Parts: sequence; structure tokens; C-alpha cells
Amino acid sequence: MTPLFPRIALVGIGLIGSSLARVIRRNGLAGEIAIYTRSASTLNAARGLDLGDSYHETAEAAVAGADLVILCVPLGAISAVAEAISMSLAPGAIVSDVGSSKVSVIRDIQPWLPYGTHLVPAHPIAGTEHSGPESGFAELFEDRWCILTPLPDTEPTMIEKVAEFWRRTGSNVDIMDAENHDRVLAITSHLPHLIAFSIVDTATQLETDLQKEVIKFSSGGFRDFTRIAASDPVMWRDVFLNNRDAVLDILGRFSRDLAALQRAIRRSDGDALEEVFTRTRAVRRGVIEAKQDKPPSKP
Amino acid sequence: MTPLFPRIALVGIGLIGSSLARVIRRNGLAGEIAIYTRSASTLNAARGLDLGDSYHETAEAAVAGADLVILCVPLGAISAVAEAISMSLAPGAIVSDVGSSKVSVIRDIQPWLPYGTHLVPAHPIAGTEHSGPESGFAELFEDRWCILTPLPDTEPTMIEKVAEFWRRTGSNVDIMDAENHDRVLAITSHLPHLIAFSIVDTATQLETDLQKEVIKFSSGGFRDFTRIAASDPVMWRDVFLNNRDAVLDILGRFSRDLAALQRAIRRSDGDALEEVFTRTRAVRRGVIEAKQDKPPSKP
Repeated sequence: MTPLFPRIALVGIGLIGSSLARVIRRNGLAGEIAIYTRSASTLNAARGLDLGDSYHETAEAAVAGADLVILCVPLGAISAVAEAISMSLAPGAIVSDVGSSKVSVIRDIQPWLPYGTHLVPAHPIAGTEHSGPESGFAELFEDRWCILTPLPDTEPTMIEKVAEFWRRTGSNVDIMDAENHDRVLAITSHLPHLIAFSIVDTATQLETDLQKEVIKFSSGGFRDFTRIAASDPVMWRDVFLNNRDAVLDILGRFSRDLAALQRAIRRSDGDALEEVFTRTRAVRRGVIEAKQDKPPSKP
Repeated sequence: MTPLFPRIALVGIGLIGSSLARVIRRNGLAGEIAIYTRSASTLNAARGLDLGDSYHETAEAAVAGADLVILCVPLGAISAVAEAISMSLAPGAIVSDVGSSKVSVIRDIQPWLPYGTHLVPAHPIAGTEHSGPESGFAELFEDRWCILTPLPDTEPTMIEKVAEFWRRTGSNVDIMDAENHDRVLAITSHLPHLIAFSIVDTATQLETDLQKEVIKFSSGGFRDFTRIAASDPVMWRDVFLNNRDAVLDILGRFSRDLAALQRAIRRSDGDALEEVFTRTRAVRRGVIEAKQDKPPSKP
């Protein structure tokens, strides 16, 4: 099968970038994989793992001649990277990314793109709590969603090329506008992470003896939060800075709902509690029916 | 090997009771298993699953002649069950339970126990989001903690008999006082569940289209909360009613910490966010080192 793209450049080679490199290679999605990442030691690690065909000390060099450029860096680094590669992009190149907020990605990339190149932002809803190139695996995207948020004037053939790329990684592809993406993800991903970070942080402030017992007996629910709260700090800092309004909106709603449960407990209102807990149980059925109940794992 | 107890009575045969029945049978921990549960259809289901040796229509009949009685009912039913069995307990019988709050269990059982019987409260930190007798499995307690919260005047030989029972289910046993148990579990289990119930409830109140998208894209973090929030509504209602003060205390601390993160996001204070997220990542390492990172699953 002819590769989808003669040359794909990956800018950033952490969990997502290195998983992409692996699946691109395994499934023959590119003739050649060019890799750039900022840190020399990470670039060396990528070389040691044999993730690509060429390794570059600048983003400019990596993207030169590439048909598809995928930015796999934290959201806070997107703008600087877009500026850096701007003059080196090949005519007709597609620029995409994997960032968790899309309005900010469009804001940060769009101004730097020369005429004749194409922006197709993407967000694979996939990940683990691990980071770095050694954490990646080719199966990460299988049966996961990848959301594309093209602009209204993006050429449909360019959108379709990126969609086909993600389908060939094993993902299901959906297309929506960036604002809606950011609102949905604030609920399904950003708020849950914020809450997990917060509850684990509450535990870090307990006196030492109690904290030890909390870790020892973490399997009653706390454990699941520690996994989420072990996610990459810089990536998540940037998510909250870049999807601020949508996160603050849903966080406000959550805080009101939690306060209502708090009042029900204080008043010993068992009926109110049972009603809420019965309602939430039904949501799980929806998740299972949507076949989103199994987390991915490194085989 | 001689069974630890000639006759064990299980009062209640849901997820925990039925898992106990299975491991008692598999590991030969009792000469005979007597089962009572309130609902006739659940009792029939237990019979169909061949979980015990005898099935009883009253708790009194089930506990008669038993050396060990384990109450596996929601916390809100403990007091009534203790009253019901009070006059039927054999001399020297040990009464235990599996409840998630221990101060209330002691309060609810202790007054009903006749002289010469022994109360050894227990809490296996094990479970899944499923309920009912068909959900149980013999491996549920393997490598999990079981906390015993005996009273200061409980005979050490009785505590040891219950400890040995739990060790033979595959659990590790720890002993602490009931107040400390309730404080630790409020943090490791009750607050995480309350928060999961709350965030999933927030999602149920979104407009229909958005709610559908939230379920569709739940794998970004929300999914883990829906699993926790699918836990048994009655059991959890009773947990919050019976461990109210410890839950409200830690909930207050959590709310303050979450408000601090909210302010950091509002002010775009990336340093504050990164500092918290780096701190929380370290807690995960503690959980992994304590070997509490893997959830149990039905084989």
C-alpha cells in the first residue's frame, strides 16, 4: 500500500508523539518519519528507540519537505513552534496537532501559516498517566476517538486526508467546531483531571501518619484519582491556562452540585442522596453502551 | 485442614457476601455456610449459584448455631439485623461485619449482643461497581486490606480468629480503632465516591446533545468517575449518613483546595498549577510502591 504521506514530521516526541511514530511505522502511514524535539536527551532517547527515519536539532529542519506536520508539544509551546516552522513549511503542507484545547491551538498556529498550507487541528482522546518517548505504544489510539476541528474555510480534501490518517491509526474520527470541542472536553477530561489533582493535593497536606495510611488504604477509590493526578504537570498546566473559560464554567456548576450533596449529608437527607446516586449509576450504562469503558494499556 | 469455623452465617448475600461465600467454600474456611438475605428472589439467586449449604428465611434461623456471623448488609440495616439475631446467637459466637464505617457499626451492634458473644468489626477494602450475588468472585479479597476495629476489651483470641479468617481469604489484615478507620476511609474512599457521584450528576444536568457528546468522549478522564459513580446507591447513601462528620470534615478541606486551584486558573497562574500537579504526581509513586495500584477484576 502506498503511504498516505511521503514524509511526516513529528514535532515533540512524548507519549503521544512516540505512539504516533510507532503506529505510523507499523501501519506504513508514511514514507519517512522526521523527528524533532526540544531536549537533546529526549531526541537521543527517540533515536535509541528507533522511532523515526531522521532526527533533527531544529523544528525547521524536521518540517522541511514534510507533507504532514504534527505538533505534539504542550499547548503552551504551540505558538513558538508555529512561529519557528513558519518559513520552512513545504507548499501544500498540512499542519496538525494533538492538543487538548482547540480554540487556543487555532489562535496560536493560524497567524503563522503561509498561504497554501493547511491547518487541520486534531485531538486524539487517548493517553495514559505516563509521559516521555519510552511510554508510547502503537495501540494507544485503537478504538479511541480523534476529534478534528477544522476551520470553515479548510479544504475538505485536506480534512479527509487527516481523517484517513487517524482512521488508519485505529481511531474513530469525529469533526466538530473548536468551541464545542473545548466545552465537551472541559467536562469529560479537564474538570475530572482538575478534581483528581485537587483531591490528591488535599491528601498531601495531611499530617504524615494519616497520609501514610491514606496511601496504604488507597484502593477504596482514592487510587483511581492518584492515577489521573499523575499525569504530566506541564501538559495539564497548559490545558487549564488555554481552556480557562470553559473549565471555569463547568467547575462552577460542579461546585454548586457538590455543595448540594454536602447540604444533604449535613441534614442527613438520605432520600436526596439515594436519588442522585441512582441517577449517576445510569450514566455508567451509557458509557458501557458507547464502548468507552475500557482504558487502553501498553501490551 | 480443619475448617476455621464449623458454621459461618452470612447475613446479606450481595457483592461482598457472595464473594465471601465463594472464598469460604473454595478455601475450606467453614464446615458449613448458612445464608440469609432479606429478599426472597436474592435468596433464590444465591441458591441457584450454589453459594451455601443452607438457605434461611429469617436471620435468626441462619445465625442459630453459627460460630461466626458476618453481617453483609448496608450500614443502615445493621441495627435492625443485630436486634433480630440477638436472641438466636450461640454462646461464644463471634459477630462481625463488612461495613465501610466502623463507629456506627459498633454503635448499632454492641447494645444487642448478649453476654458471652464477641464483636469484631471488619472492613475489607475491596469491591467493584457491581452489586448482587452474581457479581461476587472468590478472588475479590486477594492482596487487599481488611481492617479490624475491635473494642479495647475484646478478647485477643477472638480478634485473632477473625484476622486468620481474613488472611485465609487472601487479604492483609490491619487493626486500628474505629475513629481512625472512619477518618482514613473518609479520605480514601468516601470523599472520592462523593466527588465522582457529584461530577457525574453535573453531567446528567447538561442539555441532551452535550450530554451525549460527554458520554461519547468520556475516555479522557470522565469514564473513571462513571465507574465509581455506578456503585450501589443504597450502600453509599448509608455510608454518608453513617460517617457524616469525618466526610464533612475532609470535604471542607477539599473544597478549599479546589477553590485555590480555581483562583489560580482565573488568574492564569501557571506556576501555582504546575507546583500542585508536580506534588500530586509523587503521590502516585507512593501508591505504586505500596502495591495498591491494580484494581481487582472478576477472572
